[in-house]
Amino acid sequence: MPATLGLDIGGTKVLGVLLDDDGKVAREVKLRSPDAGMDTLVATAAAIVEDLSPGPIAVGVGAAGLVDPNGKLRYAPNLPHVREAPLREALAAATNRPVIVDNDANVATIGEATCGAAVGARDVLMVTLGTGIGGGMLFNGELYRGANHFGGEFGHFTIDRDGPLCACGERGHWEAIASGSALGRMARELVQLGRAEALIAAAGGDALAVTGVHVGLAAAAGDPEAIGLLTRYADNVALGLAGLSNILDPERIVIAGGLVELGPLLFNPLGEAFRRHVEGADYRPPVAIVPAQLGERAGAVGAAVLARTIAG
Amino acid sequence: MPATLGLDIGGTKVLGVLLDDDGKVAREVKLRSPDAGMDTLVATAAAIVEDLSPGPIAVGVGAAGLVDPNGKLRYAPNLPHVREAPLREALAAATNRPVIVDNDANVATIGEATCGAAVGARDVLMVTLGTGIGGGMLFNGELYRGANHFGGEFGHFTIDRDGPLCACGERGHWEAIASGSALGRMARELVQLGRAEALIAAAGGDALAVTGVHVGLAAAAGDPEAIGLLTRYADNVALGLAGLSNILDPERIVIAGGLVELGPLLFNPLGEAFRRHVEGADYRPPVAIVPAQLGERAGAVGAAVLARTIAG
Repeated sequence: MPATLGLDIGGTKVLGVLLDDDGKVAREVKLRSPDAGMDTLVATAAAIVEDLSPGPIAVGVGAAGLVDPNGKLRYAPNLPHVREAPLREALAAATNRPVIVDNDANVATIGEATCGAAVGARDVLMVTLGTGIGGGMLFNGELYRGANHFGGEFGHFTIDRDGPLCACGERGHWEAIASGSALGRMARELVQLGRAEALIAAAGGDALAVTGVHVGLAAAAGDPEAIGLLTRYADNVALGLAGLSNILDPERIVIAGGLVELGPLLFNPLGEAFRRHVEGADYRPPVAIVPAQLGERAGAVGAAVLARTIAG
Repeated sequence: MPATLGLDIGGTKVLGVLLDDDGKVAREVKLRSPDAGMDTLVATAAAIVEDLSPGPIAVGVGAAGLVDPNGKLRYAPNLPHVREAPLREALAAATNRPVIVDNDANVATIGEATCGAAVGARDVLMVTLGTGIGGGMLFNGELYRGANHFGGEFGHFTIDRDGPLCACGERGHWEAIASGSALGRMARELVQLGRAEALIAAAGGDALAVTGVHVGLAAAAGDPEAIGLLTRYADNVALGLAGLSNILDPERIVIAGGLVELGPLLFNPLGEAFRRHVEGADYRPPVAIVPAQLGERAGAVGAAVLARTIAG
């Protein structure tokens, strides 16, 4: 196997890894995402490439947004200064290396499928609960990208028509009620209702600092309000997973994002609510809902695996 | 191409077709679905097989429900007396012919893909607006059934959490607000509100007889209440199609079911609402939303096409 580079370009950071010829992460570099246009973004990415490997090497990139089959980043909600950006072309020119670009959720799915939680399964949905909700799909063991490579936008289907606004402007999208950010919003609503003593304590006494993390801490300590909040949140997540399962019938669902560290506090109520919502639960094999294994490296590792397809 | 038989077993009728060796429908037979258990259903299907072709011939079957890879009809909401029914085995024994069984929406998708509205497209969603909502998926030109062959249950994802109950018991599923039956329910609500004069006139003056058909008739005649109702219904349909497109990024969506006869009265507001709801409409190629071409024969024709895979 040739050594390859993988870069994960997100809204807050650019993470690069060097995969050696055994497929192990040999080195890794992380830089903050520049709050500027494509030229600066490409310069940042090129600097990481040079740093990780000065020689000729194939480079895979995952970018957070709609990436077309030519590696153009057409639209990226979390990189507001980057539109219609020919990322593949520009990074290949800047680094003089072969470059392949895909969506960040797709490369993360490739990562988990190669050496993570999706190994051994043929029909898999990968769902990342973060600022938004990202998605990737394996059908018959192959990544499916859709006709224009824009598939997997799992966060953006309506689930609560009268619910909160989504970042994209639509109302009640799954992302608006089931992302990591949504859990934070639900926690702050509890603060406003004066029912969040344990959450505020977990946040060091600062009511304004309460986020989803503190819900987990308070729930782990047995606070009933936090446990109730997590149960409601898990139901929001499960409603979407059940819908996706009715549509796509996966054998395994891999959940990624910081919240997976909550472990059984999240996965127990999630599994229970999923079984309640999925169609014909008594008549179908159970779907395995499992945590991702590669953490924040999944995208960069998967991008490096993808780069093998263009390595000479 | 060998001649084959196709049967479409639905909740109200069993339709059989004989496809000749040119792939044309040579004969067709229709019987009412028996309101009884599997033995009677198999006897009905076997009678159609014998009638259409007394000689040895491969038989394909599409059945409305969860059909597993062995051709067992595990669960069929609209055939309440049939559960865990080994349909393939029983029909093969009763007819002494090779039999293959699949879900009805899947075979309808095969039908439209072979000689209907999905010809020439690789990534297609087929959506049938009927009593419920059926679904089929072509990815890279191949039918995708999911890990357990239970995929394509498009009707069963939550879209309006506080909306009307679905036949499956969940609240606010897409099917509950966007099926043909849902349009009928919306029309009867308009009757109750005393705003359905034109609809009642279209139903021959019988307020209790008003269904979706009369909404179409009244809308075609220019009645503003009927046009408004169709616009709201089209928005319900579009919300689900937009969600499915964000998830799966099809190049074409084929709409089947009796309502497609409404033509532009349905497809115009539907296309407009879809464009409003789909993510990043300005940044992606448009999705073609087109009516199915095979009408009620799609399932039986597709089942006969499927039977070619087991024809000697």
